Amino acid sequence: MLSYLARWVSRGAVQALKGTSSRPQLVKTPRIGNQTLAAAPLPFAGGSPGVRQARALDQERLLQIDWDDGSCSLYPFTWLRDNCQCPLCTLQSAQARSLLFSHLDVHTGMDHVQLMDNKVSITWPDQHSSEFDPDWLKKRCFSSEARQALQEELFLNEREYWDSGLQIPTADFEEVLHDDKAALAWLEALRRIGIVYLRGAPAEQGQLARLSQRIGYLRLTFYGHTWQVQDKPMANNVAYTSGELSLHTDYPALHHPPGVQFLHCVRQADEGGESEVVDGFHMAEQLRREDPEAFNILSSLRVDFTDSGADYCDFSVQSKNHIIDVDSSGRVVRINYNNATRDSVLDLPLHQVQPFYSSLKAFVELLSRPENVFTYRMEPGDVVTFDNWRLLHGRKSYQSRGQNLRHLEGAYLDWDEVMSRLRILRKTVRGDS
Amino acid sequence: MLSYLARWVSRGAVQALKGTSSRPQLVKTPRIGNQTLAAAPLPFAGGSPGVRQARALDQERLLQIDWDDGSCSLYPFTWLRDNCQCPLCTLQSAQARSLLFSHLDVHTGMDHVQLMDNKVSITWPDQHSSEFDPDWLKKRCFSSEARQALQEELFLNEREYWDSGLQIPTADFEEVLHDDKAALAWLEALRRIGIVYLRGAPAEQGQLARLSQRIGYLRLTFYGHTWQVQDKPMANNVAYTSGELSLHTDYPALHHPPGVQFLHCVRQADEGGESEVVDGFHMAEQLRREDPEAFNILSSLRVDFTDSGADYCDFSVQSKNHIIDVDSSGRVVRINYNNATRDSVLDLPLHQVQPFYSSLKAFVELLSRPENVFTYRMEPGDVVTFDNWRLLHGRKSYQSRGQNLRHLEGAYLDWDEVMSRLRILRKTVRGDS
Repeated sequence: MLSYLARWVSRGAVQALKGTSSRPQLVKTPRIGNQTLAAAPLPFAGGSPGVRQARALDQERLLQIDWDDGSCSLYPFTWLRDNCQCPLCTLQSAQARSLLFSHLDVHTGMDHVQLMDNKVSITWPDQHSSEFDPDWLKKRCFSSEARQALQEELFLNEREYWDSGLQIPTADFEEVLHDDKAALAWLEALRRIGIVYLRGAPAEQGQLARLSQRIGYLRLTFYGHTWQVQDKPMANNVAYTSGELSLHTDYPALHHPPGVQFLHCVRQADEGGESEVVDGFHMAEQLRREDPEAFNILSSLRVDFTDSGADYCDFSVQSKNHIIDVDSSGRVVRINYNNATRDSVLDLPLHQVQPFYSSLKAFVELLSRPENVFTYRMEPGDVVTFDNWRLLHGRKSYQSRGQNLRHLEGAYLDWDEVMSRLRILRKTVRGDS
Repeated sequence: MLSYLARWVSRGAVQALKGTSSRPQLVKTPRIGNQTLAAAPLPFAGGSPGVRQARALDQERLLQIDWDDGSCSLYPFTWLRDNCQCPLCTLQSAQARSLLFSHLDVHTGMDHVQLMDNKVSITWPDQHSSEFDPDWLKKRCFSSEARQALQEELFLNEREYWDSGLQIPTADFEEVLHDDKAALAWLEALRRIGIVYLRGAPAEQGQLARLSQRIGYLRLTFYGHTWQVQDKPMANNVAYTSGELSLHTDYPALHHPPGVQFLHCVRQADEGGESEVVDGFHMAEQLRREDPEAFNILSSLRVDFTDSGADYCDFSVQSKNHIIDVDSSGRVVRINYNNATRDSVLDLPLHQVQPFYSSLKAFVELLSRPENVFTYRMEPGDVVTFDNWRLLHGRKSYQSRGQNLRHLEGAYLDWDEVMSRLRILRKTVRGDS
């Protein structure tokens, strides 16, 4: 499966499992999602141009670097002094700043700048000196284009939207565990598409702990390190029944819900239990276009969520979250919605209650349209990994009888840990700095 | 120490350690912080009035409840139907909604309402019926006052600000472990004041694991389940040296930094190593008054943080955070600032760079004013517990030689888990519903 994923990543388009197996069952007719973004740029792979000239603009307190390719970058004196890379100012073993902010003159001048051994060498008024590598400087250029490229390299925020025609990226469980390229392709697809299927895991508990170790560590919650999705008597969660689960994100009752979710099928039900997913970011953007008022309400009003009971230990959790979380630039960054744990406590003035319900109705109806929902059926040994900040997932009700009692094992991780592993793998595999 | 804390909680004022011991050494002259808030209200402790009359306002789709005390509450039909507490609509064992949102008519009428056995009994147009307990309804009244009181009960957002005159709330380590009242007083003070000192722990590693279990579980990070603050060769963090640590919050390189931090002194240095804390929320509010432009810049521009190395496992973490985080209502909710991990990558257009540095300078100077900083010295067996979203902490440099090599053990928890334990303890101790 590695080659499929690797090709997907390099071409920037979804390569789906085609005819090599009947799993995952593509219940909907496979077709490409209706928005395809370009692959993440690798702006610094080819090395940077050399420095033709460096000069201090004392009036503006800016250092101007003219590059060999004719382009030019400007760097504030303060920023340069703040980021001096010498052993006095930077703790080399931690790659962390040891220069105290109280020692930084935020109005510093510059005594002297010169090019020396292909470094930009600066002498400050107190005779402290700093040396900067041209590649390091070029990467940190303050132009809008350079910053955008670097941010995309650091955070991989570009997403590829999909709908019911999703061709689900698929990889081999053991390959992902043992091959760095396969692991990198897995995590890049998980970030960009939001869901990746892994096949060939042993059909027994404990596999998600192995998969989590591949990244770093899983996130413990009140439901345990991993948790068993089964039909349980006196269920402390609606998931632990055989009933239908409508589309939801997991754990909005936490203020920082788990970013990534793994579900491993140990046993499937004889009848029912199919899985459903929908691309929440795609749907939120569609809502913004189709019903801007509903979008504004769901992204500005905070809703209370609640979860209490006992599992790993006893718990009484309360949160306030936007159902659609947007950042300060208006970008949708997280969906927080689980109807089961949406609190009866609704902290809204009376006149906002009905608009809230109407807006949520518009969003839920959009989520549930057949053209938006991708349906599949997990079989023993399958693992689905997905972005719990982006996807909503659900399952159909199932028959909880006979010998095959349905059993999924689940685990959570956070995006910071997953992205950390992705960056390290990229460095290993591609040799990025 | 229990009685001190318990009295503090009931009086709503800080009871400090007075003359019962020389520890913690109050380096500054003790005096009461310059802003004292009232204790958290317990609005529902006395029970609710009975219902005099319930009637449906069909035109407005509102249920009006007239209470025995002459007050009146209005409840939208949709909200009532959404929160039907019957076994079909609510999974009793999980106290979670099983009614699917797709089955909710957000424009429902009401067939009939009556008072029966001191319950509000409603029949819906489809003949489904719901019963509501008056106390349950009263608590969820949509009036501004009722909502504010309930939110304060759920989240304890009122804070008591302090400065260098902090009289640090102090409790006994073993009592907090074994006595529910002591534990509740500890967590309430931790929430309201932001820092509580625990004394009398054994001066050996492993105590923070015990303390974390008292709450639930600690938060694993790349630095391990707990971490050892010592002077280490090839330190992967500036904290693991003997140098001065300027005032900072821990781990802004994560998008969701740990909410609560524990530090346990196993061994103190012979010379130096005093601890410093400052009330970041207080300082941010002061900055908002003194230098609104700086406040606006630090609360609107996101700053990159970075942390890479190897500890629990290898890591390469990147985040973007506001140095002063405010919520949508403008309330300061988190400080994210560690100069050591502030990235050399600065994702700002050139014209915002100098204003950013000037604003940060204004904030750091405010933080560092002697009248704002509380200084103390930990001795073996002392544990300090504090709000890492609110406090900035630092330490003076120390002599790393002789037999007593300084050693603190540290651990993190998240506020959701701490607040969960606080709610459960409150229920146990006070019998709150």
